[in-house]
Amino acid sequence: MKKVAVGIDIGGTNTVIGIVSQNGNVLLKTNIITPSHGDFERYTAELSVAIKKLISEAGEQIKNLNVIGIGIGAPIGNYHTGTIDFATNLSFKGRLPVVDSVRRHFPEMSVVVLTNDANAAAMGEMIYGGAKGMRDFVMFTLGTGVGSGIVANGELIIGADGLAGEIGHSALIPGGRLCSCGFLGHLEAYCSAPGMKQTAFELLAQNENSGSLLSEIPLSELDSKMIFEAAEKGDKIALEVFEKTGEWLGMGLANTVYHLSPGAIFLFGGPTAAGNLLFKPAKASMEKNLLSIYKNKIEILPSKLNPGDAAIVGASALVWKEIEK
Amino acid sequence: MKKVAVGIDIGGTNTVIGIVSQNGNVLLKTNIITPSHGDFERYTAELSVAIKKLISEAGEQIKNLNVIGIGIGAPIGNYHTGTIDFATNLSFKGRLPVVDSVRRHFPEMSVVVLTNDANAAAMGEMIYGGAKGMRDFVMFTLGTGVGSGIVANGELIIGADGLAGEIGHSALIPGGRLCSCGFLGHLEAYCSAPGMKQTAFELLAQNENSGSLLSEIPLSELDSKMIFEAAEKGDKIALEVFEKTGEWLGMGLANTVYHLSPGAIFLFGGPTAAGNLLFKPAKASMEKNLLSIYKNKIEILPSKLNPGDAAIVGASALVWKEIEK
Repeated sequence: MKKVAVGIDIGGTNTVIGIVSQNGNVLLKTNIITPSHGDFERYTAELSVAIKKLISEAGEQIKNLNVIGIGIGAPIGNYHTGTIDFATNLSFKGRLPVVDSVRRHFPEMSVVVLTNDANAAAMGEMIYGGAKGMRDFVMFTLGTGVGSGIVANGELIIGADGLAGEIGHSALIPGGRLCSCGFLGHLEAYCSAPGMKQTAFELLAQNENSGSLLSEIPLSELDSKMIFEAAEKGDKIALEVFEKTGEWLGMGLANTVYHLSPGAIFLFGGPTAAGNLLFKPAKASMEKNLLSIYKNKIEILPSKLNPGDAAIVGASALVWKEIEK
Repeated sequence: MKKVAVGIDIGGTNTVIGIVSQNGNVLLKTNIITPSHGDFERYTAELSVAIKKLISEAGEQIKNLNVIGIGIGAPIGNYHTGTIDFATNLSFKGRLPVVDSVRRHFPEMSVVVLTNDANAAAMGEMIYGGAKGMRDFVMFTLGTGVGSGIVANGELIIGADGLAGEIGHSALIPGGRLCSCGFLGHLEAYCSAPGMKQTAFELLAQNENSGSLLSEIPLSELDSKMIFEAAEKGDKIALEVFEKTGEWLGMGLANTVYHLSPGAIFLFGGPTAAGNLLFKPAKASMEKNLLSIYKNKIEILPSKLNPGDAAIVGASALVWKEIEK
């Protein structure tokens, strides 16, 4: 009997569904569009059809397939309540009963579990990635936003309200940049991909005659990958974007170290492809902001999860962890 | 047989030793001066003599006394290594092997355990105080510094290096006030008792003709209790000190909420005697700085530990928790 879990990643644009083995291999995956029709029950019905279809396909390929549960990662996914609460990037409004709705379509499934996407990624890192055997680490996911997942004493930290690990919304510079959430000065406003884009444009505005490659690209087209490509060509403005992003990130990481004294910090997401362009200034800034008792102890490491599969692998890891309990 | 634990609080000036029952009652206590001679081995020898004397006195009063272990709380006490690392407020230099040294004098004791004083207080709050039954909370101790202890998933968070819970040194306002540690803008620089004193003097300097009661007190004599007394008499400057301290504290608490999503935050220490003068602006500021998904969920509560005994009760709680493992 081949035991597998279903891992689901609900994103603003796509919902990815994977059949994942206990050792973290994605055996089969598919995706559906996360709809804009705003009808949550209709969406979970569509999602359930897609899950059943994928399970049935997997059943044809693999003998004695045994699906032990469904793990779901989503922005602001709440482990305790099984709901997504007031997500800003989905068309569905209010408090969405994800676990209850999915469970209704899979009454025989013993585990249906939800958490936020960065928590799921941290779980994936712990079970299948670079954090194997670590009992205390923090994972930051850099993308449209800045997500985070905390593991302490070998356990994912969920919090009393199931909303732990939203470090991207802690204040980095009070009164600073406008964050996507409407508050000022959050870490996310500086270290997300849109934050990097803003940094690039601020630097271009301050250096009109820089001759930067980025000055050829309109605001509407610029993304963090283009900044990386320009930096690789030695473009000074692009290099400074990474310097500054790393500096801000390191300040934020230091604040997290003072809370949690993690053994390592993992970074995941598009901007981390830049490697040392980002990791080096982040490490230097974190060390600069740490008391001597913490210095030169905490590594900042790239995630070892496959970027394309991390979300569904992490979500599936939730299921195995739940069964262990 | 009456099982008890020894709880020890190593402070910069005094070392308090207590015999504490399993339900948190201090049966007997004593204290010795934390010496300025700088000889750590001599100090632990003196400490051990005092512990033995106290145990022997307790043995005369209580039939069949059974001392099951020694718990020690100290600034920067490291649970993993059993050492105090580079404390700035002790005369002993470098890394102090507290657990090893004490154990040498008590080879028969099955548990000798150390952690930082705020962690010990959090443990005391969980086992004997207002956090009974809570699985996720954070405790802040306001005094000469700002200490903190984190409980998540029902466990004290120690961290990979045993140095979790130094939230007082996270940056509240980058580039802001000088902290006792030499860095700029830490939470402690704003919300400790010396921070409150600085706020008072800044406000006095800005309002020379305020007629404040505090303007009669020289800097060298002012303390947070005097500010409280003036505030109780309606002194505007003193009231504003609490307003501002609360506002800064609330900003810091919000950052912690984004990390940990605690069910409650406990405040302990001298300045908390001011009650709503401090709690009300702190709560208002925390709520103001929280995303709506966290709003009106997290209580800020006064510690229920007896201020005089909290440190030794908390330290003794470490022993029972250790035996449970």
